[in-house]
Amino acid sequence: MKCQILRVLPTRSSFCSSVNSTQLARSCNGTIPFSGGTSLESTLAAMNEEIFIDFQKMNKTIAVHEQDMDVVVQPGISYDALNEQLADQKLFFPPDPGPGAQIGGMIAQGCSGTNAYRYGTMKDWVLGLTVVLADGTIIKTRGRPRKSSAGYDLTRLFVGSEGTLGIVTEASLKLTDKPENVRVAVGAFPDIHSAIRTAVGIVRSGHPLAAMELLDDMAMKAVNSSGYSDIEWPEKTTLFFKFAGSPAHVAEQVEEVERLAKEQQCVQFTFSNSADEADSLWEARKTALWNMIALKNDPSDNFISADICVPISRLGDMIAATKDSFERSGFIGSCLGHVGNGNFHAGVFFPAKDWEKAKGLMREAQKLGVSMDGTVTGEHGIGLVNRDALIWEVGDGTVATMRQIKMALDPLCLLNPGKVFKLWEGQE
Amino acid sequence: MKCQILRVLPTRSSFCSSVNSTQLARSCNGTIPFSGGTSLESTLAAMNEEIFIDFQKMNKTIAVHEQDMDVVVQPGISYDALNEQLADQKLFFPPDPGPGAQIGGMIAQGCSGTNAYRYGTMKDWVLGLTVVLADGTIIKTRGRPRKSSAGYDLTRLFVGSEGTLGIVTEASLKLTDKPENVRVAVGAFPDIHSAIRTAVGIVRSGHPLAAMELLDDMAMKAVNSSGYSDIEWPEKTTLFFKFAGSPAHVAEQVEEVERLAKEQQCVQFTFSNSADEADSLWEARKTALWNMIALKNDPSDNFISADICVPISRLGDMIAATKDSFERSGFIGSCLGHVGNGNFHAGVFFPAKDWEKAKGLMREAQKLGVSMDGTVTGEHGIGLVNRDALIWEVGDGTVATMRQIKMALDPLCLLNPGKVFKLWEGQE
Ligand SMILES: Cc1cc2nc3c(=O)[nH]c(=O)nc-3n(C[C@H](O)[C@H](O)[C@H](O)COP(=O)(O)OP(=O)(O)OC[C@H]3O[C@@H](n4cnc5c(N)ncnc54)[C@H](O)[C@@H]3O)c2cc1C
Ligand SMILES: Cc1cc2nc3c(=O)[nH]c(=O)nc-3n(C[C@H](O)[C@H](O)[C@H](O)COP(=O)(O)OP(=O)(O)OC[C@H]3O[C@@H](n4cnc5c(N)ncnc54)[C@H](O)[C@@H]3O)c2cc1C
Repeated sequence: MKCQILRVLPTRSSFCSSVNSTQLARSCNGTIPFSGGTSLESTLAAMNEEIFIDFQKMNKTIAVHEQDMDVVVQPGISYDALNEQLADQKLFFPPDPGPGAQIGGMIAQGCSGTNAYRYGTMKDWVLGLTVVLADGTIIKTRGRPRKSSAGYDLTRLFVGSEGTLGIVTEASLKLTDKPENVRVAVGAFPDIHSAIRTAVGIVRSGHPLAAMELLDDMAMKAVNSSGYSDIEWPEKTTLFFKFAGSPAHVAEQVEEVERLAKEQQCVQFTFSNSADEADSLWEARKTALWNMIALKNDPSDNFISADICVPISRLGDMIAATKDSFERSGFIGSCLGHVGNGNFHAGVFFPAKDWEKAKGLMREAQKLGVSMDGTVTGEHGIGLVNRDALIWEVGDGTVATMRQIKMALDPLCLLNPGKVFKLWEGQE
Repeated sequence: MKCQILRVLPTRSSFCSSVNSTQLARSCNGTIPFSGGTSLESTLAAMNEEIFIDFQKMNKTIAVHEQDMDVVVQPGISYDALNEQLADQKLFFPPDPGPGAQIGGMIAQGCSGTNAYRYGTMKDWVLGLTVVLADGTIIKTRGRPRKSSAGYDLTRLFVGSEGTLGIVTEASLKLTDKPENVRVAVGAFPDIHSAIRTAVGIVRSGHPLAAMELLDDMAMKAVNSSGYSDIEWPEKTTLFFKFAGSPAHVAEQVEEVERLAKEQQCVQFTFSNSADEADSLWEARKTALWNMIALKNDPSDNFISADICVPISRLGDMIAATKDSFERSGFIGSCLGHVGNGNFHAGVFFPAKDWEKAKGLMREAQKLGVSMDGTVTGEHGIGLVNRDALIWEVGDGTVATMRQIKMALDPLCLLNPGKVFKLWEGQE
C-alpha cells in the first residue's frame, strides 16, 4: 500500500508503468454497464472498444413491501414500468428522468426530473444496493432500514458514479404514497425576473408543491408552432405548477400561489379543474423538448445544451444572462427547467460549422453558474462532455480525491474508464 | 499504484511493513476531531494517545442566504445556536440529535433525531463541505446548488465517516421554513403491536407528520416516577405525534391520526390546543432518557443500549422480542424511539458484574434487527463499540470496500484511526 497521493495526473506512460503490462492488456477494453440508454453527456461512449453489459433481461421486481413502502428490483426495469406495477397498491416511485430510463442507469446517473423539487433526486430513493466490484466481489451496501449510520455511505457513493465504481445488480428503493387529486396551474409572466421572483416566493413560503417548471418565451413559441397543443399560449416566460394532496390542502396552495404570481404581475393564471384538464395543461411542459424542434432555422441544424443549477436567488440573473448571450450569438435557443431547485437547461440550434462557437456559449453559461456558487450539471452528469467543467467547478484537489477512490476500487480501470475524469494526461 | 485489493485484514506486522517506518512513527498517534462531544459508541475514544482537534472557536455563521434557504457555517456551532440565529428569518435547520451537538460532529456522525421522520437525516441537509484531507489538501465538495450531478458524491461520503476520512472545516447547509402552528397529540395503546399498527397506518396514509415517537410502558412508568411531569400518564405503550402546518392542514391530520389510533383500540388520545400545551405534552418525550434513571434498582447500576432500525412492518415483532428478552434476563429495561423511521433504542440497567450478559442482550437484539433486513445502528454510528456488528450487518466485502476507501484517502491512518473498522487484525 503506497502512501503517495495521486494529485498530479500521470502521463499515459507513467500510468501504464504503474499497472503491470498483463494487467494493462486487460484494462485496454473495460466494460460499460448499459441500462435504458437515455443518458446524455456521452457517458455510454465506447472510446476504447469497451464491452457493454446490458441489463435488458434483468428487469424483474423481486419484492414489493407494501407496509414498509419499499421495493427490491433488478437494474433493467424502467421507472414507468415500476410505477405501473405499483399503482394498484397506491405506491409511487418519484424520480422521472428521460422516458425509457431504467433503475440501473438512474442510480448510476443520480438522476432527477420534474418530481425532484417535491421529492428529491435518485439519491433520496435508494435504500441499499447489491454491487459487483471490479475484482468480482459482490457487496451489499445495506438492507432495507429507512435510515442507518452503519459505516460509510457506500450507497450514495455508487449513486451518480456513472458506472465507474461498480455494477449495480439489485436495488432496494424507497416508495411513497401515490399522489391523489393532482391539479395543474399555469402562469404567464412579463419577463424572467418576475417569474423567478414568484418561484422564490413559493419556495420560501414552504408550500410543498408537487412540481414547478419554467418554459421561457421561446419555448412557449415552440409549443404554439409545433401544433401539438390545443391551447394558444401567451408567448411569455411561463411557470407550470403541479399540486397534489387533499382537496382542502390543494385549494390552500393554489390560493397562495395565485396571490404570489399576481404580486409579480402575472398576466394569465389558468387552473385545471379536473385531472383531464391537468393532463392537458401539463402536456406543454412534457413535450417541450420535442416541440423545440419547431424553432429550427434549418432542419440540418445541430443542438447543444447545458444543465446548470444555481442557488434560486441567482436564477433570474443566470437565465437572463444566458438568453442575452444567445441573442448576441445569433443562434436560436431557449431556457427551460426545474426551477424549484434552481435547475434549468439552456439549449441552442446551430449549423455544424459553428460547433466551437456553440460549445463556447455553453461553457460560458456553465462558468457563470459556477461563479454563482452553482453547478455545471444539476442532473445530467459529467460523462465525457463535462470533464473539464467538473474541474472548474470543484477544483483539482476534489477531482483528484474522486480519482483516488476510483483507483482504490478499480485499479485496472475496467469499469467505464475515462468517464467523469481522465485517468491520465491526454486520455480521450 | 498497486492493484491488489485489500479484502483480507492484514496482521499488525504486515500492515506496518506496508507503511514505511518513519511514516508509521507518525501514524502511531493520529488525530481525533472533536465537536460537541455528545456522540455515543466511543467514536471519540483515544486508544493510542491521539491528539484532539477541538472546533470550539470555529463556531461562526459565515453567511445566511435567506432566499436560497441555506447557511454557511463553521463546524463548532451547535444546532440549537444555529436555530436561534435563524428564528427571526423564520428559517429552520431540522436535525436534532443530543443537546449540545455541533455541526462538525453531526456531519461526521450522520446524525438524525426526532425530526428525521418528516425531514430526513443529516445527509439530507448538507449541500457542500470544505474538508481538510489527511495529506493537508483542502477540498470543497460542492458549492450551494440545491442539487448536482457533478462527479462522485463526496459530500455524502464524508457524512457519517466519523472523522476517519477528513476534517470538516466549513459546511453549507440546507434550511427549510420554520414550522408554525405546532400541535402535539399523545395516544396510549394496549400493547406494542397496536401502537406499531397505528404507526404503520399513519406512514402508509402519507400524512407528513412532523414527528412520531414511541415510549414503551416502562418508559412511561419512568416519566411518572421521576416526578418531572405534571401529568399522570397511563403506563402503557404510548405514541407521541407532532403536527405542523396551516390550521386546516393540522386539523385534517389530527382527525386521521385519531381515527387510525381508535381503530387500534387506543385507550387515551389527548390533543394539545395551544403551543404551551404542545410543549408540556412533548416534555415527557424530551426528558425520557433522563427520566429512565428513576427505574434503576441500584444507583450504581450501569446502562447499555442499542440503536436498531428495521423496516417498520417488523418493528412490532422486533420490540416485543426485545422486551421479552429483557424480562427473561431479569434486568430492568425499556424501548423508545423514532418509530416513523422504524428506529428505536433498547436499553437496560445492570450491575457491573453482569456486563457480558447485558452486552450479549444488546448483540442479540442487533442480530435480530439485521435478520429483519434492518441495521445495527439507525443513528448513533459504529465508533469502537459496533465494529463487529457492522461486519454481521453488511458483510466482510462491504467493510473491506470501506477500508479501501480509508486507505486511499488516509494511507497513514492519521484520522481517528481504528474507528468504524479495524485496520489490522487484533487492533484495539
Ligand atoms: C428526453 C430526455 C429527457 C431527459 N430528462 C431528464 C431529467 O429530467 N432529469 C434527469 O436527471 N435526466 C434526464 N434525462 C437523462 C437520462 O434519462 C438520465 O440520465 C437517466 O438516469 C439515464 O438512465 P438510463 O437507464 O437511460 O441509463 P443509461 O443511459 O443506460 O446509462 C447511464 C449511465 O449509467 C451507467 N449504468 C447503467 N446501468 C448501470 C448499472 N446497472 N450499474 C452501474 N452503472 C450503470 C452507464 O454505464 C452510464 O454511465 C433525459 C434524457 C432524455 C433523452
Ligand atoms: C442525550 C443524548 C441524546 C441523543 N440523541 C440523539 C438522536 O436523537 N439522534 C442522533 O442521531 N444522535 C443522538 N445522540 C448522539 C449525538 O448527539 C450525535 O451523534 C451527534 O451527531 C454528535 O455530535 P457532536 O458535535 O457531539 O460530535 P462529537 O461527539 O464531538 O464527535 C462525533 C464524531 O464526529 C467526529 N468529528 C467531530 N467534529 C468533526 C469535524 N469537524 N470534522 C470531522 N469529524 C468530526 C469525531 O471525531 C467523532 O468521530 C444523542 C446523544 C445524547 C448524549
